[in-house]
Amino acid sequence: MSPFVVFEGIDGAGKSTQIQILHDTLVSKGYNPLLTHEPGGTPLGETIARWLKSYPQRSPFTELLLFNATRAEHVSQVVQPALDAGRIVICDRFVASTLAYQGYGRGLDLRLIKQINLLASQGLQPTLTVFLDVHTTTAHSRIDAKALDVFEKESLEFHQRVRQGFIEMAAEESEAWLIINGSLGKETIAKLVWQRVRTLLKNPAKP
Amino acid sequence: MSPFVVFEGIDGAGKSTQIQILHDTLVSKGYNPLLTHEPGGTPLGETIARWLKSYPQRSPFTELLLFNATRAEHVSQVVQPALDAGRIVICDRFVASTLAYQGYGRGLDLRLIKQINLLASQGLQPTLTVFLDVHTTTAHSRIDAKALDVFEKESLEFHQRVRQGFIEMAAEESEAWLIINGSLGKETIAKLVWQRVRTLLKNPAKP
Repeated sequence: MSPFVVFEGIDGAGKSTQIQILHDTLVSKGYNPLLTHEPGGTPLGETIARWLKSYPQRSPFTELLLFNATRAEHVSQVVQPALDAGRIVICDRFVASTLAYQGYGRGLDLRLIKQINLLASQGLQPTLTVFLDVHTTTAHSRIDAKALDVFEKESLEFHQRVRQGFIEMAAEESEAWLIINGSLGKETIAKLVWQRVRTLLKNPAKP
Repeated sequence: MSPFVVFEGIDGAGKSTQIQILHDTLVSKGYNPLLTHEPGGTPLGETIARWLKSYPQRSPFTELLLFNATRAEHVSQVVQPALDAGRIVICDRFVASTLAYQGYGRGLDLRLIKQINLLASQGLQPTLTVFLDVHTTTAHSRIDAKALDVFEKESLEFHQRVRQGFIEMAAEESEAWLIINGSLGKETIAKLVWQRVRTLLKNPAKP
């Protein structure tokens, strides 16, 4: 199977920047990567993503189900077909975000989340999860305060729990995770990401 | 708790007609019932209901999660508050429909559905489930062929499995279910429903 590379981290960690750099690097090396994101990527996903980002009154359990409904569609319609076609897939957030936000952040049972995540993703696991780790106050300062979504408006304590969730998951599955200090310069981070991603390619490109 | 009366049955069984008659009867007796329905009843519910009814490409698991996401919002925002306020709630479809359609109909694991149903409904169970049972061919002949939704377009075999699911659930929980032959006249059905519902009222009204 082609590499399935997922980027995780709290909002403001710098995921979008690094995802774009990795995408452009792969394209410059002759690859045809698919850049996608959760919870969007399908008509249902985009609809629900808008609702999730703007509608504040909902239970954590509703969030869990909606994220996984969009995931089920996203995996079956977008991610898996691209991997089957031999494309590298780069995805902004995946199952770990649900564990971090709805589990560590909102307090839902982690076993329940894992069970539903597994069914929605049909067992698909990232080849590599790149975790850009930044302190919550650093992340907060990077976010546009005028355009905060429901999650970004949450307290620093909430984001601290989410960050702690990512740290624990990275420790548990250390071989499949790459933890990078997200407060490093963006070129340094991009270099660290590329060093690892190139080892996953069938015909590793030169550094 | 006030009575929570759910109507179940395949499309074309006559639920809408009987729900309206029961509602009007209760109003005429001085009650203030809430008439509601799944998967609508909330802003999220209405959005997803439209999507579910019109968008044919989705997995059974996605259906399960979306119906239960709307259920979680519907129970917490609409049904439970009305019951807490002492109102009788009449609901068009509830957890049994998910078991019948996504379980018996689409083949998803019944235990998984029960687990997710239970979490979404926060343990709320109908005081009474009225099951209007009609043969699939009878039901089919009652539906407007020009305006069929995704479920109504399914095969007769699918609806036969769904009906069988309702029959099995009614047999398992016979004390909380009222099975009525939906091919009886609508006044006869309404009388049978009222005979049972009035026994649930705190100050039973005269027949």
